[in-house]
Amino acid sequence: MFWIVFAIFLGACFAAGSTGGLFPPGAWYRGLDKPAWTPPDWAFPVTWTTLYLCMSFAGARVAMADDNGIAMALWALQVALNGLWTPVFFGLRRIRLGMVVLAALWCAVLATLVALWQVDVLAGALFIPYLVWVSIAGALNFSVWRRNPNEVPAPAE
Amino acid sequence: MFWIVFAIFLGACFAAGSTGGLFPPGAWYRGLDKPAWTPPDWAFPVTWTTLYLCMSFAGARVAMADDNGIAMALWALQVALNGLWTPVFFGLRRIRLGMVVLAALWCAVLATLVALWQVDVLAGALFIPYLVWVSIAGALNFSVWRRNPNEVPAPAE
Repeated sequence: MFWIVFAIFLGACFAAGSTGGLFPPGAWYRGLDKPAWTPPDWAFPVTWTTLYLCMSFAGARVAMADDNGIAMALWALQVALNGLWTPVFFGLRRIRLGMVVLAALWCAVLATLVALWQVDVLAGALFIPYLVWVSIAGALNFSVWRRNPNEVPAPAE
Repeated sequence: MFWIVFAIFLGACFAAGSTGGLFPPGAWYRGLDKPAWTPPDWAFPVTWTTLYLCMSFAGARVAMADDNGIAMALWALQVALNGLWTPVFFGLRRIRLGMVVLAALWCAVLATLVALWQVDVLAGALFIPYLVWVSIAGALNFSVWRRNPNEVPAPAE
């Protein structure tokens, strides 16, 4: 049962993460002024795959436990927000709106971490790397926003 | 507690549904050859808002119950797939890939309905209108695909 639930959560993660393959960073992203500490492109899929495994393991542990209602609802909220950033940033090239989505995601991840932790300490701890990575992504989005004040969203057809 | 969980699920639904506002049907969609039974544009946000309320109510009922693990994981999977279709169809204009996403969503919604039903019959029943609507959306996507064989995806920048 645990591994079935784990596999379903992992499927949800990859549904959200598939936006990364569908809206890849292209010439537009390469041309942006980015800070020196920007992670290389290859680091993103590697990190996300690791995080998705941690998130799914944490979700499955708490799904098997009692009194998991808030944690399960928050897990769904964070995965829905997770899949939203890439289409907004790379699809629409809306750097500032991407910042709003990342801020909402950061809050949802922190809330999920706390709610998981209250049910199962290991599950909460497995969300710490995710919160760290979203913090880095947020700092990068913020830096890109400030360094490219003249960037405009992609034209609507 | 019930209404907090309901509000969190509703937030997840609107995170997924916000793609409908971000990637609106524009001149490209209007220009497609569509079947006579295509619902009018205004019907989509009205229907989705109703469905989101039903889905969140169903999710909150089961979140409060025991042995909800599979149902909660599937609820997260369906919301992640829900937010994926609009960027694929309207953002990338990939009609055939939209069909694949809708097929995956349809399976996830049916599985969630069954899993919710086993915990709480009302929660399962609240997913029936959602399954009906995704069936209609699937039939529309399929019809658009067959009627517009020469449509090509939006160019990647």
